[in-house]
Amino acid sequence: MLSGDTPINFVDHVGIAVHDTRAALRHYTDRLGLRLVGDEEAAEPGVRLTYLDAGNTFLQLVQPLRDGPVAAFLRESGEGLHHVCLNVDHIDRALQQLGATSPAGVFRGGRGRRACFLAEEPNGVLLELAERDRRP
Amino acid sequence: MLSGDTPINFVDHVGIAVHDTRAALRHYTDRLGLRLVGDEEAAEPGVRLTYLDAGNTFLQLVQPLRDGPVAAFLRESGEGLHHVCLNVDHIDRALQQLGATSPAGVFRGGRGRRACFLAEEPNGVLLELAERDRRP
Repeated sequence: MLSGDTPINFVDHVGIAVHDTRAALRHYTDRLGLRLVGDEEAAEPGVRLTYLDAGNTFLQLVQPLRDGPVAAFLRESGEGLHHVCLNVDHIDRALQQLGATSPAGVFRGGRGRRACFLAEEPNGVLLELAERDRRP
Repeated sequence: MLSGDTPINFVDHVGIAVHDTRAALRHYTDRLGLRLVGDEEAAEPGVRLTYLDAGNTFLQLVQPLRDGPVAAFLRESGEGLHHVCLNVDHIDRALQQLGATSPAGVFRGGRGRRACFLAEEPNGVLLELAERDRRP
């Protein structure tokens, strides 16, 4: 857990955009031996989210279930690393402390938590904030 | 720490390709408040590596110092998420257990550790293995 002048606690997960969760899982579970610890559909963003326990954080496979930002990412860039999600205690306070904005606003993300994406993408890195919950 | 049928211990770091470390650090340290915990030049891959403590893992900024794979990545894709590094006890045993290969072979990576990149990039994700060392 970090301390000092940051609201960031830890890396909650690393998001990977995929076309087909089932095909992707074959690699991550069967080949790499990672354990599947969550599989859900997040209605609001319209994505299937699966979580793999990577020891100190999760790898999250994100498959779009309808058109939207992740489907657009796949069209433009293909499958690959999509975002890094940072755990914070309180999204609103974290946004204020970071001087950050989230134009699309807060949504109910994976594992039932409040989450948002940041407008600013430092060095091309899409950042998400998610509240509380524990790391693996 | 994972157990069972995987040689993977945890996510050592998430690599981010950048053109200019100094400019990138302004965001990660000044804006996000992450602590810089390492800054080095890795001679063999020819990159500057800086490490930011993200609580449970590191964010690693990778700036190429000469032409090579990271410079090529920047030309093709621009700055952004570049790879995920997985910590293992022994690279050779891990490669064998994973049925994986590393055509470019083992090199002396950041923080003086033996490291290698895997040939196979599942769902467009470049994976690195690095030996031992501790997470933050």
